[in-house]
Amino acid sequence: MPPADPGFAARVAASFERQPAMALIGATLDVVEAGRVVIGLAHRADIAQQHGFVHAGILSTALDSACGYAASSLMPADAGVLTIEFKVNLLAPAAGPRFRLEGQVVKAGRTISVVEGRALQLADDGREKLVATMTATVMTIVGRAGIQH
Amino acid sequence: MPPADPGFAARVAASFERQPAMALIGATLDVVEAGRVVIGLAHRADIAQQHGFVHAGILSTALDSACGYAASSLMPADAGVLTIEFKVNLLAPAAGPRFRLEGQVVKAGRTISVVEGRALQLADDGREKLVATMTATVMTIVGRAGIQH
Amino acid sequence: MPPADPGFAARVAASFERQPAMALIGATLDVVEAGRVVIGLAHRADIAQQHGFVHAGILSTALDSACGYAASSLMPADAGVLTIEFKVNLLAPAAGPRFRLEGQVVKAGRTISVVEGRALQLADDGREKLVATMTATVMTIVGRAGIQH
Amino acid sequence: MPPADPGFAARVAASFERQPAMALIGATLDVVEAGRVVIGLAHRADIAQQHGFVHAGILSTALDSACGYAASSLMPADAGVLTIEFKVNLLAPAAGPRFRLEGQVVKAGRTISVVEGRALQLADDGREKLVATMTATVMTIVGRAGIQH
Repeated sequence: MPPADPGFAARVAASFERQPAMALIGATLDVVEAGRVVIGLAHRADIAQQHGFVHAGILSTALDSACGYAASSLMPADAGVLTIEFKVNLLAPAAGPRFRLEGQVVKAGRTISVVEGRALQLADDGREKLVATMTATVMTIVGRAGIQH
Repeated sequence: MPPADPGFAARVAASFERQPAMALIGATLDVVEAGRVVIGLAHRADIAQQHGFVHAGILSTALDSACGYAASSLMPADAGVLTIEFKVNLLAPAAGPRFRLEGQVVKAGRTISVVEGRALQLADDGREKLVATMTATVMTIVGRAGIQH
Repeated sequence: MPPADPGFAARVAASFERQPAMALIGATLDVVEAGRVVIGLAHRADIAQQHGFVHAGILSTALDSACGYAASSLMPADAGVLTIEFKVNLLAPAAGPRFRLEGQVVKAGRTISVVEGRALQLADDGREKLVATMTATVMTIVGRAGIQH
Repeated sequence: MPPADPGFAARVAASFERQPAMALIGATLDVVEAGRVVIGLAHRADIAQQHGFVHAGILSTALDSACGYAASSLMPADAGVLTIEFKVNLLAPAAGPRFRLEGQVVKAGRTISVVEGRALQLADDGREKLVATMTATVMTIVGRAGIQH
């Protein structure tokens, strides 16, 4: 999927840096490609639930951001995107120690885009385990305050 | 819906207190009734996205917790619940200043419960605005580590 | 919620009559109000799965139509709506003998509306049982072929 | 993913044949593999909405069946599966002339399985177009009436 804006990677990175919530949970922007964005997250005690696993909502926050930015990467420079809904399936407890949250655009529409998210748990020995899947529906916004991405 | 455990309110409160992620985002447990739980959240700069609205994922984190605890309130004392999936519609930017996240059990099953969530934005003048809706599917867990609630 | 089109009821009824799929499954349009539409469905052997319950997909078809028409009822006469996604929770087997599928608009937006659906099973003795819940996200379409409702 | 039941293909086919709703809409069972099932559907006037496209709910009915059977293919012979919820994104009007509805198991759990569905539109010239995506959450049922698959 060709990007509409050649400067999309810098634009996405700048937007990510301006999101305090991303810094709060310790998320990092790892990959920005046209239609695909990967956010990293490390297990930390303060983002966990009572059994020590990363809270499903915190994992979903990072995964939703990855999906929104994946859609945003394909938009013109003067447009943004707004997540209007997402659904997440939580497949296994998020033990960590690290996670890769990937958003991949499935359909890039003029008004509505659909993005699929995958949360992979990365073990120290390199093994990967799928711990969550997401589908996000994202709307293109032109010139409107309050855009998410 | 009658609770199976007379001590459900204390059990839910104790579980909430043990969730670091809830403290991190500044969420408070405001109401615990059989089948209905309300969590409070105040707008803060560090839980926002780049336009200053509360990040949709952070709002969803609190709303998912409210839904999970609503289901948990109806469970026996030796059981817990695990959110297996949730879907959230984001109806308006979450400006705040405060939010009431309510989870209400729609169906309490032996294995699977369905809980509906409502995120209400509370203005200083008392006006309320619905900013998000959620449906969460929750599984009853007996004796298993990793339960969410 | 005030309707934008005074002739919404006739417009919705005319659209319903032109949907062969509704006739195929035996669905009827029972109530059309501004923001709320009710479709009726009777159990029939040919819309069932192998255990005799109404197939969840058939029930969802009628419920999605109720949601779409509920959104459509609030639109201007020259606009239509297109369901862009829906999520349905299936709470109990759909034994029947009759069902009431209700769509209620939760948020009517200029571009995006959110509608909640309830599938109630009606017993001969008048008892009602909630067998499915739905949330549908619907987009307003002006002048475009292929609109659903 | 290895099947638990060597006779899964025949079991799935027998169940499909006993679903009147599948015959009503003209669906065919095309592929049955361990963890992956493909159902075929042809455009017909009586399964359409008012603009001639296949009704989104009818498409979803076939896609949900493909997902349920994909999960069922991995279950022991004495178990069945019940779809407890599904979410579908409708990406484009379903013009046809034919469709391939594929369900692929993403996670096969002891109690809960997650299945992803893809609805591909097949043109006469062989071109394929993704018209819908689905995620279905399916519960394993042992010895209970009312199973869907």
